[in-house]
Amino acid sequence: MTQAKVAELLDSNQFLQEFQVKGWVRSFRSNRFIALNDGSTINNLQCVIDFENTDEDILKRITVGAAIGVKGTLKESAGSQQRVEIEVNEVKIYGDANPEEVKLTILSPKRHSLEKLREQAHLRVRTNTFGAVMRVRSKLSFAVHSYFQQNNFHYVNTPIITGSDAEGAGEMFKVTNLDLKNLPKNEDGSIDYKKDFFGKETNLTVSGQLEGETFALGLGQIYTFGPTFRSENSNTSRHLAEFWMIEPEVAFCDLDGNMDLAEDFIKYVLKYVLEHCKDDLEFLDQRLSNEDKAKPKAERSEMGLLEKLHFVLDNNFKRVSYTEAIDILKNSKPNKKKKFNYLIEEWGADLQSEHERFLVEKHFKSPVILFDYPANIKAFYMRLNEDGKTVRAMDILFPGIGEIVGGSQREERLDVLQDKMKALEIDEKELWWYLDTRRFGTCVHSGFGLGFERLVLFVTGMSNIRDVIPFPRTPQNAEF
Amino acid sequence: MTQAKVAELLDSNQFLQEFQVKGWVRSFRSNRFIALNDGSTINNLQCVIDFENTDEDILKRITVGAAIGVKGTLKESAGSQQRVEIEVNEVKIYGDANPEEVKLTILSPKRHSLEKLREQAHLRVRTNTFGAVMRVRSKLSFAVHSYFQQNNFHYVNTPIITGSDAEGAGEMFKVTNLDLKNLPKNEDGSIDYKKDFFGKETNLTVSGQLEGETFALGLGQIYTFGPTFRSENSNTSRHLAEFWMIEPEVAFCDLDGNMDLAEDFIKYVLKYVLEHCKDDLEFLDQRLSNEDKAKPKAERSEMGLLEKLHFVLDNNFKRVSYTEAIDILKNSKPNKKKKFNYLIEEWGADLQSEHERFLVEKHFKSPVILFDYPANIKAFYMRLNEDGKTVRAMDILFPGIGEIVGGSQREERLDVLQDKMKALEIDEKELWWYLDTRRFGTCVHSGFGLGFERLVLFVTGMSNIRDVIPFPRTPQNAEF
Repeated sequence: MTQAKVAELLDSNQFLQEFQVKGWVRSFRSNRFIALNDGSTINNLQCVIDFENTDEDILKRITVGAAIGVKGTLKESAGSQQRVEIEVNEVKIYGDANPEEVKLTILSPKRHSLEKLREQAHLRVRTNTFGAVMRVRSKLSFAVHSYFQQNNFHYVNTPIITGSDAEGAGEMFKVTNLDLKNLPKNEDGSIDYKKDFFGKETNLTVSGQLEGETFALGLGQIYTFGPTFRSENSNTSRHLAEFWMIEPEVAFCDLDGNMDLAEDFIKYVLKYVLEHCKDDLEFLDQRLSNEDKAKPKAERSEMGLLEKLHFVLDNNFKRVSYTEAIDILKNSKPNKKKKFNYLIEEWGADLQSEHERFLVEKHFKSPVILFDYPANIKAFYMRLNEDGKTVRAMDILFPGIGEIVGGSQREERLDVLQDKMKALEIDEKELWWYLDTRRFGTCVHSGFGLGFERLVLFVTGMSNIRDVIPFPRTPQNAEF
Repeated sequence: MTQAKVAELLDSNQFLQEFQVKGWVRSFRSNRFIALNDGSTINNLQCVIDFENTDEDILKRITVGAAIGVKGTLKESAGSQQRVEIEVNEVKIYGDANPEEVKLTILSPKRHSLEKLREQAHLRVRTNTFGAVMRVRSKLSFAVHSYFQQNNFHYVNTPIITGSDAEGAGEMFKVTNLDLKNLPKNEDGSIDYKKDFFGKETNLTVSGQLEGETFALGLGQIYTFGPTFRSENSNTSRHLAEFWMIEPEVAFCDLDGNMDLAEDFIKYVLKYVLEHCKDDLEFLDQRLSNEDKAKPKAERSEMGLLEKLHFVLDNNFKRVSYTEAIDILKNSKPNKKKKFNYLIEEWGADLQSEHERFLVEKHFKSPVILFDYPANIKAFYMRLNEDGKTVRAMDILFPGIGEIVGGSQREERLDVLQDKMKALEIDEKELWWYLDTRRFGTCVHSGFGLGFERLVLFVTGMSNIRDVIPFPRTPQNAEF
């Protein structure tokens, strides 16, 4: 008797062989047909019961949500819905699911809103949509590792708890093990952080970039892939307080190389999931199309999910300087007709989501890489161009998602970096180690950050970022 | 002109071809021989300069730590130390490294203590030892993902910030964005956590297991691999406040299956790094052997590093029940001669590190899986055996490292779990979602946790856990 997964059996040709398979009942029709799912695939295995020879008590306990095991023979199915089925010899009930209680949960066999699914995040992986999203997420994350490892990048775990707050002023969560009810104080009444676990104030990281740079300037090319945090009070469908970020960093690489890397990387991972998540993506494609049908025509997507993924794969990302983009926006219809909430009047304006969407979705109709942004709207570590007013920054904008990648060539010149930090009142003592990398064998280097959940959002066609991470953390919500 | 990595060129037979290679100077002898390293391998590329035709100013700037690029021809080397070398046509200095300043750092070409390396954690990846450790760490982490993905496990990112503290009472870091200088208070003087970001008290996770279980009971088999935290004040060579943990969880799997999985998994990743990190492991093997030579004979390792890795690969882990282990320990020499700090007198004793080491290193001389521990020294979620006093727990003990894996079959019976929680005063309301998994289609399931840094420690032969993670977090230390 071979123990098998549903996914294997659905692909199997070992007819008349005996198998055992275990999973959860998705439906039970006519006291005969069990649709069994074990999480290995979105598809269910039809298990056909000989109800006349099955104990009445067992039959009653085959209910939606119950955990069962069946032993039986693999057969070609007579039905048109499936290629194979199991002719069951024996059913075992492992865990019941009381139908009256199941009714109150999202396990009950009817359509539930995504909001309701979120409230039962501990069960939602047992629904078709969420199961598919989580399998795709898993494969995507492996594609990320595979890409970088194949290209000889070294994976680096930069610290989560950080004592340096140079980057995220104001948006960082504090980490402490002090007793908040009885905080130790200095003589002047301030909090005595020397008594805290780390002997100083510490926060949750907003980015591993600065530490990642120190590793790239030794190992050559590295990537991080870990959780990052923002305590920003943004209750939107695109923001999470805790999310996973991918940050490659490459020594001896300039901004053009950085763009090439980002584009090649994104295309690789899309291609990977198209190959490895066929069933799940087809389901999600269908799901999106059904959602769309319920919408007014004007709000429907121009492309289906799979079509959109192939479109990104098959086309070059359009590379446009910030200055060109401003020109396009200034002369655009929505700007002239004052349809933008923020009108673009002059060079130097920070682009809003509405502008990015216009460029990507209306003007270029393709992913866009914007580069060479004004220095004063970008971070201190980005390399100053010869013009003295722009920096070698790039953002990659995706249809429907907006910014999916933010990166730059880093300022490798010690003196320029010091001047910039002085101007922005960033304490050199805080970043002595970062400056050291510019003292000892500095070189041109570049990197970018990609918010993993934005990528999952794009690939799965979901519309709320809370539906692409197992247990979302957002303002006023840290359940489970 | 082909841009190439040092690792490629050292393996190349493309003699007389022109290459460009960029990296950092490790040494410069006789104004002629540059040892160039770019992080792609532990080995350096010999670049031979024609100093008579090279600008004096350039020659002076080729110093230890400088970032340079060379263009030249790949040749077979006349020297005995290397197979190939680059005959240099052109040198470019990207970033200088002032020799007077380099002297004060760990980049200077002499032996530095591991303690000193830790103080300059931003530069230590440019040393042989630490570069090797970090490359092995990267490959090990990919081996982890590869193993589980090949075996159809789904990767799950369980939450880092958690509102549930059922497991880690007292050892968790608090996460907050309240202003500690001005904490909002309720009328009774207690802190008003409703005003905090998540509207409640939150902590950093100590384990993703409970959330992981909810996913396994839907997706079938999952694994996590992410950071976990302990605010325990343990200043030892085996403890970190922030470390990475791997936690697989499998539905329909009992403790025996769990042991099989753990052993198979560990052997896979060891085999993987033996195949993919040959040069680095040979270096680390040699390093350990040199360290050993400096020690008194009694303290030396019985096996070399590579020998030890092969030994674990080639032998079955010894499976021993807690009860058998207590018998062995009670009758052991160190117990009878009162050499143990904690003498083993009766069944029920919690095993200390000295006992574990005796079992692994002296008695069995192999990795040991201890199982069926007394219920009262183990966690509430472990499955109670029929004897009513032991639980289906397992610990895997490794030579030199001690506990590397802790796992169990989980208590899948709702009533037994509820009784246990009541006895331990764990609030059911805190874990309503966890209990739900036992209400709706519960089943036998098992999983384990493996501290990734302990694995890296074992594989690299390093002796302090702070030397196998990029930026260690320990009591009074969150630098960088």
